[in-house]
Amino acid sequence: MKFTGANILSVDQFNRDAIEHIFRIADLMEPYAHRRKRTRVLDGAILGNLFFEPSTRTRVSFGTAFNLLGGEVRETTGMESSALAKGESLYDTARVLSSYSDVIAMRHPKSGAVAEFAEGSRVPVINGGDGANEHPTQALLDLYTIEKELAHHGSTIDGMHLCIVGDLKYGRTVHSLSKLLCMFKQVNITLVSPPELGMPTSIVDLLESAGHKVTQVSELSGSMDADIVYQTRIQQERFTNLDEAEQYRGRFRLNSEIYTKHYKPNTVIMHPLPRDSRAEANELDNDLNQNPNLAIFRQADNGVLIRMALFAATLGVEHLVSRYDTDVIWYSDKANS
Amino acid sequence: MKFTGANILSVDQFNRDAIEHIFRIADLMEPYAHRRKRTRVLDGAILGNLFFEPSTRTRVSFGTAFNLLGGEVRETTGMESSALAKGESLYDTARVLSSYSDVIAMRHPKSGAVAEFAEGSRVPVINGGDGANEHPTQALLDLYTIEKELAHHGSTIDGMHLCIVGDLKYGRTVHSLSKLLCMFKQVNITLVSPPELGMPTSIVDLLESAGHKVTQVSELSGSMDADIVYQTRIQQERFTNLDEAEQYRGRFRLNSEIYTKHYKPNTVIMHPLPRDSRAEANELDNDLNQNPNLAIFRQADNGVLIRMALFAATLGVEHLVSRYDTDVIWYSDKANS
Amino acid sequence: MKFTGANILSVDQFNRDAIEHIFRIADLMEPYAHRRKRTRVLDGAILGNLFFEPSTRTRVSFGTAFNLLGGEVRETTGMESSALAKGESLYDTARVLSSYSDVIAMRHPKSGAVAEFAEGSRVPVINGGDGANEHPTQALLDLYTIEKELAHHGSTIDGMHLCIVGDLKYGRTVHSLSKLLCMFKQVNITLVSPPELGMPTSIVDLLESAGHKVTQVSELSGSMDADIVYQTRIQQERFTNLDEAEQYRGRFRLNSEIYTKHYKPNTVIMHPLPRDSRAEANELDNDLNQNPNLAIFRQADNGVLIRMALFAATLGVEHLVSRYDTDVIWYSDKANS
Repeated sequence: MKFTGANILSVDQFNRDAIEHIFRIADLMEPYAHRRKRTRVLDGAILGNLFFEPSTRTRVSFGTAFNLLGGEVRETTGMESSALAKGESLYDTARVLSSYSDVIAMRHPKSGAVAEFAEGSRVPVINGGDGANEHPTQALLDLYTIEKELAHHGSTIDGMHLCIVGDLKYGRTVHSLSKLLCMFKQVNITLVSPPELGMPTSIVDLLESAGHKVTQVSELSGSMDADIVYQTRIQQERFTNLDEAEQYRGRFRLNSEIYTKHYKPNTVIMHPLPRDSRAEANELDNDLNQNPNLAIFRQADNGVLIRMALFAATLGVEHLVSRYDTDVIWYSDKANS
Repeated sequence: MKFTGANILSVDQFNRDAIEHIFRIADLMEPYAHRRKRTRVLDGAILGNLFFEPSTRTRVSFGTAFNLLGGEVRETTGMESSALAKGESLYDTARVLSSYSDVIAMRHPKSGAVAEFAEGSRVPVINGGDGANEHPTQALLDLYTIEKELAHHGSTIDGMHLCIVGDLKYGRTVHSLSKLLCMFKQVNITLVSPPELGMPTSIVDLLESAGHKVTQVSELSGSMDADIVYQTRIQQERFTNLDEAEQYRGRFRLNSEIYTKHYKPNTVIMHPLPRDSRAEANELDNDLNQNPNLAIFRQADNGVLIRMALFAATLGVEHLVSRYDTDVIWYSDKANS
Repeated sequence: MKFTGANILSVDQFNRDAIEHIFRIADLMEPYAHRRKRTRVLDGAILGNLFFEPSTRTRVSFGTAFNLLGGEVRETTGMESSALAKGESLYDTARVLSSYSDVIAMRHPKSGAVAEFAEGSRVPVINGGDGANEHPTQALLDLYTIEKELAHHGSTIDGMHLCIVGDLKYGRTVHSLSKLLCMFKQVNITLVSPPELGMPTSIVDLLESAGHKVTQVSELSGSMDADIVYQTRIQQERFTNLDEAEQYRGRFRLNSEIYTKHYKPNTVIMHPLPRDSRAEANELDNDLNQNPNLAIFRQADNGVLIRMALFAATLGVEHLVSRYDTDVIWYSDKANS
């Protein structure tokens, strides 16, 4: 896959080589994301950060990634203020707004809207989430986190045991992650969910066609022997009614006691965030906050690296980043972390 | 007219020399807007982009123009969050906010509000639209587009035939454009609208006093022999009631069939955008999208050039832009377009 | 107090040395704030400007201050769009968002929320106002303004006579200012308010413990002999009901006639802004706008200097600012003011 000038719309665009290519660029971004170095490789470039549906962390993560490469960010948030509300086509919006920037990151509440926009755009478009459809940068940062966490334990994605827990029916995150996993070898996947919220058959079929071992269960039992446990958020807005949401809320939670009982001492804990920290939700308990295996914040940090990598690749500067770098002169605690 | 330090509040400020001066600066901006070059002439300058009424494209266009000159942008959108809602005077708001920036672009829903704000401001203020009153940067980019499109055909504004179609009563865009046209010679203007939505007599008088030939008709007939057709948006919010809006919706539309029947093969098509692309609106049909004479997106692009020119002139750097420029190192498809 | 890497959450953190340190850094910022020089000392640094409660001027003032030091700004405004609304803890929000920036300025409607956020943050957090609790940068800019205005008249905070007028019960601004004044000597303070809206006893006790003379009155009478009069805003939203607000609205106003009758010819007039300029409010009349002692806009300007100083101190670059400066090449009227 050629990245320069390309749109990033779906995980389906990626083969294993493309994934590895982006991950190696992400590795190169660490000194800049950790403020040990400053680069100006995108000096003068403008990101159009178009969030027609609010998402603070994804929006800021894209913007920060672009700033860290030396570029500027022009933002739009919300729908009501836009011409789209007055009947303008996505094609027209794209023709006009794409003349204001060099690359666009876009979130939209409607499935397919980002791809439709990309057809009218004169600059590369990166999908920041289009409704229930795709959120490819989340899937890539999840997989990148798995790779890095396993490497820390001397292990690899090929041959790992991944446990995915919670709402597997509505969670676009785990669907996209599963698609990416099909490019790897001999993954052992345990899916833990109530039967009504199980992984769609099409996804299970894909995983099995790729040679992976898939086990579906409705509760944790004994030792799960998992290298990674991926907890999913109870996305209440995905349920058809409040009763259904209430029924499963908290049934597939993870806390210190459950972790000790069912997982290995070094099982890595992931979650797409945000997690609902209210007592009645309890999907991933705060009593795990000091556990070194809790990778949820490293996972969020990796989002910046992945987005930097995609911008660098899309704008064709991955080999130039270090040529335009300088020392950081101000204090940063991050440089020591 | 001296631009350095001046406010840009109304098209009435401009004479033909001033217009030509801004247009020649806009021409100089092309390499930067097209990303063939990068300039830092406004390095360290801050634009206060104050949109007390939402307008995504005008807001982003101003912000992008400032970024392309090397400056930073601080933005405010919406009214409810501002001190204005707590009874603060525009004078106070201007005194305070103007200390935070070097130039201000402002949109406000109330006629005259931008001029009132400018009286309290300590930095130049550019009117980005004040209700039904003025939107001078739109008028300038319209006229600049006409000049460039005609030049492409070896022609000039002096002596052209312009056809303006649609709602000419409420459209502030065509009123401002008409005022600017008074500084040119022997323009032939055909106004096409229902009698109830005709051009105000005061504007027609101005055009005729300038020696222009004005023809008012209520429908297209035969060949219009126009060099330019300027379609206007049906601004539903300007009508006194929904019935009135419905009555004229679509009656003065333009599509491929109508274009072929009534216009010359190279008549340039303009529109202030956004256009309503819903089937029931049909003011400017998508079937013209591939027609090379459709200038509506070039028109939007020109908005960046005009706003760059106004910033450069207002901050007195028009002669310094190229002294602070460098090569663009990242990929841009725009550089080839 | 060591500033590098520290949070700025409360005026209680400051002793007199710390205050003087920040004020001397603020003095150094004048050439940059007045656009006589440009510095890039924070080149590559990112401010996370998180306003979970709207406040246009405070938000823009923080952003401008950071831009003037050469840094970039990523912003979030409003609450509804944030994960906090979906039950995310402030700790989680802080862990994630602090990875996107090098320092955070934050406003939040809930008392204590900024301190709670700071516990999860991996970068320094500056409190931009947390409900009725604290707004330390406002208190510092108020005190800095008093110092500068008195110095202009050859006087000092030690030994001055300060008159504070209006709603002293609910005004967090005057509470914080009073705490800071406790580090100075022999201040004469006259508090003018209706008895029901008097200064809390705890604050009066603090001032008296510091050796200051405190006089509480319910109306202006005779000559107040004040060096400074600090008018407070009638914050209607702080009152328990509308009747209570109406009762005192305008009773403690200041206009030219009252100023001439009760104050010295060079008494400096301050106000935290915004002031309600509607006729029925009349807390600080527009007929004082041309009075050279009206310091309210210089006070707002000083906010940029103080915030620049806090950013420079927090990021440890106060001694490096001039090493990275250059000339300003564009026109600025501010350079002459």
